[in-house]
Amino acid sequence: METDSPIKAPATSDPRALRDALATFTTGVTIVTTRNTEGAPFGVTVNSFNSVSLDPPLVLWSLAKTSRSLEAFQRAEYWAVHILSAEQEALSTSFARPGENKFEGIELESGIQGTPLLPRCTTRLQCRTSFRYEGGDHIIFVGQIVAYDRSERAPLVFHGGKYAVATRKTPPLTLAPGTGAPIDPRFGEELLGYLLWRASQQFHLRMQPTLAARELTQEELLVLMPLFHNDGRSAPAFSSTLADLGLDAATSTIDRLAARGLIRIEPDTRRLFLTSRGRHEILQVFAMTKAIESECLSQLGDWDSVSLKNLLKLFILQTNPGLPHPWDAEDAVPQA
Amino acid sequence: METDSPIKAPATSDPRALRDALATFTTGVTIVTTRNTEGAPFGVTVNSFNSVSLDPPLVLWSLAKTSRSLEAFQRAEYWAVHILSAEQEALSTSFARPGENKFEGIELESGIQGTPLLPRCTTRLQCRTSFRYEGGDHIIFVGQIVAYDRSERAPLVFHGGKYAVATRKTPPLTLAPGTGAPIDPRFGEELLGYLLWRASQQFHLRMQPTLAARELTQEELLVLMPLFHNDGRSAPAFSSTLADLGLDAATSTIDRLAARGLIRIEPDTRRLFLTSRGRHEILQVFAMTKAIESECLSQLGDWDSVSLKNLLKLFILQTNPGLPHPWDAEDAVPQA
Repeated sequence: METDSPIKAPATSDPRALRDALATFTTGVTIVTTRNTEGAPFGVTVNSFNSVSLDPPLVLWSLAKTSRSLEAFQRAEYWAVHILSAEQEALSTSFARPGENKFEGIELESGIQGTPLLPRCTTRLQCRTSFRYEGGDHIIFVGQIVAYDRSERAPLVFHGGKYAVATRKTPPLTLAPGTGAPIDPRFGEELLGYLLWRASQQFHLRMQPTLAARELTQEELLVLMPLFHNDGRSAPAFSSTLADLGLDAATSTIDRLAARGLIRIEPDTRRLFLTSRGRHEILQVFAMTKAIESECLSQLGDWDSVSLKNLLKLFILQTNPGLPHPWDAEDAVPQA
Repeated sequence: METDSPIKAPATSDPRALRDALATFTTGVTIVTTRNTEGAPFGVTVNSFNSVSLDPPLVLWSLAKTSRSLEAFQRAEYWAVHILSAEQEALSTSFARPGENKFEGIELESGIQGTPLLPRCTTRLQCRTSFRYEGGDHIIFVGQIVAYDRSERAPLVFHGGKYAVATRKTPPLTLAPGTGAPIDPRFGEELLGYLLWRASQQFHLRMQPTLAARELTQEELLVLMPLFHNDGRSAPAFSSTLADLGLDAATSTIDRLAARGLIRIEPDTRRLFLTSRGRHEILQVFAMTKAIESECLSQLGDWDSVSLKNLLKLFILQTNPGLPHPWDAEDAVPQA
């Protein structure tokens, strides 16, 4: 019958290709824990979790028949599923490896019949085993939820074989005049350059009154902030770094900030230092910037905030044509 | 025994809260299809899919006992799981509803024993039923993969009860001098304002040579682009829209573009029109901008490109303090 099929790949010819194909199904990440009959804690990282039924409330997950934890789970009446948060990537990695000391240093809480509960998760489900089913090289565990709790932490995601975070999908920003249809994405607001400019500008316009009140420009801020971390860098090299980033007037900006007493240029070496006034000023600006950031991110929501910062960093890293990072200790362009 | 537990919520007291808690586990979205014994196609949207075993290759999913499709799937030898792409949200919604005509207008391909295969998915798995298990108000179907295919399309994600896209997690951009630890995120490159500025600037610097060659500035581009969609808008209102977005010299920019013959200002009404030269110029710039965008996004990868644009739009929408969209037909600020 397989001659009917336009699909050529036989299922088992290349286990790695099959695993990659299955990994295109995105999942959260969980750690499932229990205690064995001697009271020792067991835990494994699992992404084959899913909910099955609401009435009664059942969930399932599967465990390799070769797992060292298999016996403990097969004998356990209760186990707990922890849906991990985006901050728990390291915990996920640790519980994915075979090992004796996974629980070392973790402050456990105690669930039903002493089930070990991990802190700082997105959601925790305490379950009683309902069924154990045959599933090839795995056993499928089905359990009934008997208690649960949750937090507002953004969940960790496993996506294409990598840790990830997820983002709500959005509608178009504006619609074409007359038709009410989205504008042709080739010529308008869907252009990446516009989206980046607009998002950056929207943030900048919020900061504008604060900066104006302190008689600072965005460019001056981009000079002061890196100096907060790296005092003593060379003025020509630092100017050059900033010029590479498109801040053409970097040298005159540095001189102006020095004239205002916010930075000090060491006469012989031309090295730059933040004065105590400069340090005080930048701490004030940091605090105000953080307040504006918090306001924006609360409008975006906790989950998407994690994604936004993550994705901007990814974009900056992946598309960087070799531009320096102004926060780096060494200026990328050597002193002339 | 439940007195041991720090978790207060009993599992079944509030089905909605429980459903919300379970929804914190992120999943992909699939449509599972089959044919009944009369040859009619059946299909349901399912996110309770997961892989179970690699040897043999088994997957599972569950279907409500009340589903109209239950009988077809219980009698079927073969069914196909379609892992949906980010562009297939509408298909997901359509197959999630009970209905007779879900397949209308879809160009089906034919799989093993005529199993209906949907086009343009991320991954498709053709399976033969291995087991059917009891799962409360659902039946758990376990099947062996007998054929599959996949594309590079970014998968659709279901996250916190909403459609979503996912993003790889990233390491810090730079490390603190000396310690090699990430810089304190309160004071540096993790600041949202910096990330937005840097990403936008990195894109802009790539466009710079192109714009310079055509003697255009970024500001001039931001005047020409919206006019491409909305000819005939009033000059004062449009200037005002642009000024609200922080383009202070909007009026003089408009005059300069008119002097260069790229736009025409109707003398009596002060309405703005793109000249044919202006239209030609902007089409050239669109093409070059798109080429740069494609280059950046290919460095970011298909999956994360979908996320980045989505998230920037979300940020712009959620944090907009009431700024106009320059592409909108009506200028937000009324003509003076």
